[in-house]
Amino acid sequence: MIERHDGRAADAMRAVSFERGFTCYAEGSVLVSVGRTRVLCNASVIEGVPRFLKDRNEGWVTAEYGLLPRSTGTRTDREAARGKQSGRTQEIQRLIGRSLRGVVDRTRLGQYTITLDCDVLQADGGTRCASITGAWVALYDAVQVMLGKGLITENPILEQVAAVSVGMTQAGPVLDLDYVEDSTSDTDMNIVMTASGRFIELQGTAEGAPFGRDDLARLLDLGEKGCRELMAAQRRVLGI
Amino acid sequence: MIERHDGRAADAMRAVSFERGFTCYAEGSVLVSVGRTRVLCNASVIEGVPRFLKDRNEGWVTAEYGLLPRSTGTRTDREAARGKQSGRTQEIQRLIGRSLRGVVDRTRLGQYTITLDCDVLQADGGTRCASITGAWVALYDAVQVMLGKGLITENPILEQVAAVSVGMTQAGPVLDLDYVEDSTSDTDMNIVMTASGRFIELQGTAEGAPFGRDDLARLLDLGEKGCRELMAAQRRVLGI
Amino acid sequence: MIERHDGRAADAMRAVSFERGFTCYAEGSVLVSVGRTRVLCNASVIEGVPRFLKDRNEGWVTAEYGLLPRSTGTRTDREAARGKQSGRTQEIQRLIGRSLRGVVDRTRLGQYTITLDCDVLQADGGTRCASITGAWVALYDAVQVMLGKGLITENPILEQVAAVSVGMTQAGPVLDLDYVEDSTSDTDMNIVMTASGRFIELQGTAEGAPFGRDDLARLLDLGEKGCRELMAAQRRVLGI
Amino acid sequence: MIERHDGRAADAMRAVSFERGFTCYAEGSVLVSVGRTRVLCNASVIEGVPRFLKDRNEGWVTAEYGLLPRSTGTRTDREAARGKQSGRTQEIQRLIGRSLRGVVDRTRLGQYTITLDCDVLQADGGTRCASITGAWVALYDAVQVMLGKGLITENPILEQVAAVSVGMTQAGPVLDLDYVEDSTSDTDMNIVMTASGRFIELQGTAEGAPFGRDDLARLLDLGEKGCRELMAAQRRVLGI
Amino acid sequence: MIERHDGRAADAMRAVSFERGFTCYAEGSVLVSVGRTRVLCNASVIEGVPRFLKDRNEGWVTAEYGLLPRSTGTRTDREAARGKQSGRTQEIQRLIGRSLRGVVDRTRLGQYTITLDCDVLQADGGTRCASITGAWVALYDAVQVMLGKGLITENPILEQVAAVSVGMTQAGPVLDLDYVEDSTSDTDMNIVMTASGRFIELQGTAEGAPFGRDDLARLLDLGEKGCRELMAAQRRVLGI
Amino acid sequence: MIERHDGRAADAMRAVSFERGFTCYAEGSVLVSVGRTRVLCNASVIEGVPRFLKDRNEGWVTAEYGLLPRSTGTRTDREAARGKQSGRTQEIQRLIGRSLRGVVDRTRLGQYTITLDCDVLQADGGTRCASITGAWVALYDAVQVMLGKGLITENPILEQVAAVSVGMTQAGPVLDLDYVEDSTSDTDMNIVMTASGRFIELQGTAEGAPFGRDDLARLLDLGEKGCRELMAAQRRVLGI
Repeated sequence: MIERHDGRAADAMRAVSFERGFTCYAEGSVLVSVGRTRVLCNASVIEGVPRFLKDRNEGWVTAEYGLLPRSTGTRTDREAARGKQSGRTQEIQRLIGRSLRGVVDRTRLGQYTITLDCDVLQADGGTRCASITGAWVALYDAVQVMLGKGLITENPILEQVAAVSVGMTQAGPVLDLDYVEDSTSDTDMNIVMTASGRFIELQGTAEGAPFGRDDLARLLDLGEKGCRELMAAQRRVLGI
Repeated sequence: MIERHDGRAADAMRAVSFERGFTCYAEGSVLVSVGRTRVLCNASVIEGVPRFLKDRNEGWVTAEYGLLPRSTGTRTDREAARGKQSGRTQEIQRLIGRSLRGVVDRTRLGQYTITLDCDVLQADGGTRCASITGAWVALYDAVQVMLGKGLITENPILEQVAAVSVGMTQAGPVLDLDYVEDSTSDTDMNIVMTASGRFIELQGTAEGAPFGRDDLARLLDLGEKGCRELMAAQRRVLGI
Repeated sequence: MIERHDGRAADAMRAVSFERGFTCYAEGSVLVSVGRTRVLCNASVIEGVPRFLKDRNEGWVTAEYGLLPRSTGTRTDREAARGKQSGRTQEIQRLIGRSLRGVVDRTRLGQYTITLDCDVLQADGGTRCASITGAWVALYDAVQVMLGKGLITENPILEQVAAVSVGMTQAGPVLDLDYVEDSTSDTDMNIVMTASGRFIELQGTAEGAPFGRDDLARLLDLGEKGCRELMAAQRRVLGI
Repeated sequence: MIERHDGRAADAMRAVSFERGFTCYAEGSVLVSVGRTRVLCNASVIEGVPRFLKDRNEGWVTAEYGLLPRSTGTRTDREAARGKQSGRTQEIQRLIGRSLRGVVDRTRLGQYTITLDCDVLQADGGTRCASITGAWVALYDAVQVMLGKGLITENPILEQVAAVSVGMTQAGPVLDLDYVEDSTSDTDMNIVMTASGRFIELQGTAEGAPFGRDDLARLLDLGEKGCRELMAAQRRVLGI
Repeated sequence: MIERHDGRAADAMRAVSFERGFTCYAEGSVLVSVGRTRVLCNASVIEGVPRFLKDRNEGWVTAEYGLLPRSTGTRTDREAARGKQSGRTQEIQRLIGRSLRGVVDRTRLGQYTITLDCDVLQADGGTRCASITGAWVALYDAVQVMLGKGLITENPILEQVAAVSVGMTQAGPVLDLDYVEDSTSDTDMNIVMTASGRFIELQGTAEGAPFGRDDLARLLDLGEKGCRELMAAQRRVLGI
Repeated sequence: MIERHDGRAADAMRAVSFERGFTCYAEGSVLVSVGRTRVLCNASVIEGVPRFLKDRNEGWVTAEYGLLPRSTGTRTDREAARGKQSGRTQEIQRLIGRSLRGVVDRTRLGQYTITLDCDVLQADGGTRCASITGAWVALYDAVQVMLGKGLITENPILEQVAAVSVGMTQAGPVLDLDYVEDSTSDTDMNIVMTASGRFIELQGTAEGAPFGRDDLARLLDLGEKGCRELMAAQRRVLGI
């Protein structure tokens, strides 16, 4: 078994940090960093709900995702200029939205929509997981604003959620893949876990050799460890 | 625990059938039925490969997915008329493509692309899984045509692949959800498995309550059973 | 004068058949086959009318048309993926809509829209004509459903309509061109005729040499014969 | 039988005129007026042919059509602003292109494309027919330029072509419908005829009551008369 | 210092003319010619205002701009066919709209929108300036129609506006650049001036060497002279 | 005369700062702050030039501009999701590109394109000016990388460029408008100036009352002062 290219232990996360209040207008604004991956997560509170929720007593939580053109090693075309969002972008923003909705009681949101804009400033692997982890902190802050203003009366957040990628690499099963590991791994799995240790999403993809149930077990162990560390960091930055 | 609405046992698949040669032009053309879900899977052999594979000694396998407007209970807008494919459509066709590529040795495909068009004629849940399962049979037939014409000399298909959905429903963990079960389940998981019993994709989503590792184990057991039955059916219809 | 490439007499239709109830959700669902051309015609009954009919006492009948990518000899790009419908597609679906509206008294449709989705599963020439002929049967079935449910009280269908192509080919004037004949003909004409022997649409195009009035007369004779046979087949399958 | 609203005889055309050299850059530039309908037809000679003609010894003739937003009684949305051409626009520009190609021997065009831009400055019915009639004059002028410059050596224009609409109205069968007649007619037919008295296109549509073969005969008589008058006017303005 | 290629003095405009009532439906319709540049400016009076003005006591004035494909020396792609307006087009139509709004008291417009469609029939430089100058005349005529019909009671036009381009060329600072001068100038400036001698827009761009404040002063002198001449011509054609 | 709402003197800039190396992949990456306006300017060096420069001995400099959805007080729709860039966005990115090209000798750039992505993280007025000012610093850094790698041998940057807005407000003519001032000003002018004190762009727009030449003189004085301060800050952060 060879070592990880950056010398990390198989079960080691990269350095994680959150900078709250990164921008001044959003009700929640968090710059999350996981190693060199940096995502700006802005939570906007907007009056009204989508049409399909009209006349139901529920609010909405949704997400959009974008990659700044030069967040990547070589410049990526700007989606606004190409005139459409890629399949990958849509897949990711749907995942972020589902993950956050999974820990929100939308009947407590009144007729409000919270939109989580996750814009990647720097991409070194794991941007969708960092988006989910950071968006939860931004959501937390936005909910505090709503409670403070009396827009809602009960906290709709049921529990924490965080996400991390794990994968089968040349260095064996590892936690929190960076871009180099991600692009050469056999299997890549994104794990979205709540504080109660249950899953909201599991997305495992074999880009190379398929994976067995034993591989899966080891990946889940790593993922659980990573998510617990991320949730501890979320609590630390929020002081809760 | 309540019964499944159609009386099936928790681990029972719906009736599965394949109609090969459903249309006359495609190199492989299979109408797959899983209960009332019916998907037409056409495999087209096309000279040339995408630009990103230029000058590499590999062919390509890709998929496109579509839902006929009235394949569903109420009419769905035609994507061609709306002018774009939905995020859901793109997500599904990317999944189908990855699943098929996972069992193909593309170095044996020469400079050919095989495109798998999966068009849903009738949708009663599980259309992406039926697409994968049927597309593998269409791919098999197309590869036979290529071998027969001498376009390629070695069979690039490494093993079988099939897919099924499992989920946590009011009737507990069940195999092969239909539309009614799918839309009311807490967790829905799509399992893409090969004949060697390993996974190419696992996509589990909690729409309601999150799921634990014990739930996951039961769902994987059900999924493996389903995939093995689907692969037996694939072999039967191909006489292999 | 040379023979037709498939040995048919100049005034012979290809084999015609209708399979009603081909899918289970649409109010009318008919798979029409004219030789190897096969089109799935689904009629959907939808509450409401387009804006331009608001506050007028009329319903609406409209059509959409699509070609499955591998319905053709070589794969055709998917319009949903290209992001727009071709001029040909729009021309055809407008023709189908006008043809059906030509035999419907829309004041008897209440505030309902009937959308006819004509999706070509296999294309061997004459797909727009087969679509019209099949859509009429689907419309008939959908109207029966509406009457049965009491959504409307009077049958809005005034008479039958069917369509066929005729053309000037190397074998002279012929009825019901297949793809090979269509792509080498000098003139191609689509004839949409009602049971009362009158026309709703005549579209004659000289791709090669222009045609004279004498040619036109012979083509109309052939077209009338074809339409009468198609309408007889419509009545047979409906038992009327 | 009531009179036509503008007092014309049933078989009378509106006043027709052509203004050649209306703009200064196009190789052929003709403003055609038919009554109040005015269309600017510019013929552009462009080196090269579309990809589907590569390596065949043929040039190409094609057309584009547009309606200035306020060419109509109430303002029509600008298609460039809406981001797509309507089905009607595409149908019309395909018709114009086919009509002109029908009188051109493309093997004499070398590797050139002639694009006919037909832009409607004022629309009072019959814009597609006026476009064809005017475009032929612009094409004639552009071909003279090509011959003069030695780009081609033989005149590729085989004969004249012109187009007119006829229809069944409250005033009976009439020639050259204006907007008011067109929007209230039962049947509208566009006739594209060559100098040799043969048809390139016949497009008859019953918006109201279907039409019989006797109606058709009367409409064709009117259409032939109109086209002959239009072709006489074409020859007059060109002095040929 | 070399001479201007067409022999004009540095401070000489090209010949300017206006043809009112160029088309018959628009409330104001003016063909403005500045040298060989010809723009058709149609003013349409439309009931209602854009959503962002709802419930405010103001009307709206807006503009759209288009270039006929062969208004230019070599054919320009049709924006409707390409499916979007270029950045240049959008920039120009925003400029025209702002310029006209600058001389209109919108509180006197009631709940009406006036749309100015500026379509370039022939382009020899200065099309955006000609559009503004011509649109003002069309606006004037449309306002007279509104007053005449009693749609509004007070004239909302506060003063005249006209526009001209000036630039630093090989012949020094010159007034009213044509296409040849425009494409070889170092600096190009568009000046939108009112009758009271004040500016609504100044847009100076150095394509080559930057310009100093002394250059600016000379360009403004030229521009003022040009605008005054254009406004005199506007008054002449309107007889005011 | 009333005071500025934030107490600044009429000729006072907001606080300006540059953070170089803000992201790690771009050849130049600068976060520029002007008051609360913050724009990330990334310069990417890309091999090759646009087609219209093929076979000419020149490189290219271009810019793209975007506003993160919640960079603004209320959330702005994501352009990638809407499927097109607004006219405002296109106008701004064209301005940035022209401004930078105005100080670059492109014959020294070889066959390289430098793309300047200006993404607004926080918008409080003056984002286009901040983009130009920051982009010049990013360009400077990118050029140093190119020289260091030997991609080019001579520095193509001719001089500094910076931009600032000035305007006529309720507090009179002022320098460097923030959002509140910008949205209530009568005239807003963007001034793009080089170190040699000459202009590359002047864009003055009267949203309210038109402005006279005397106003213009005062605005230019303010703008020159602001640009000189910005260029001093550019030099300080680069240590040149």
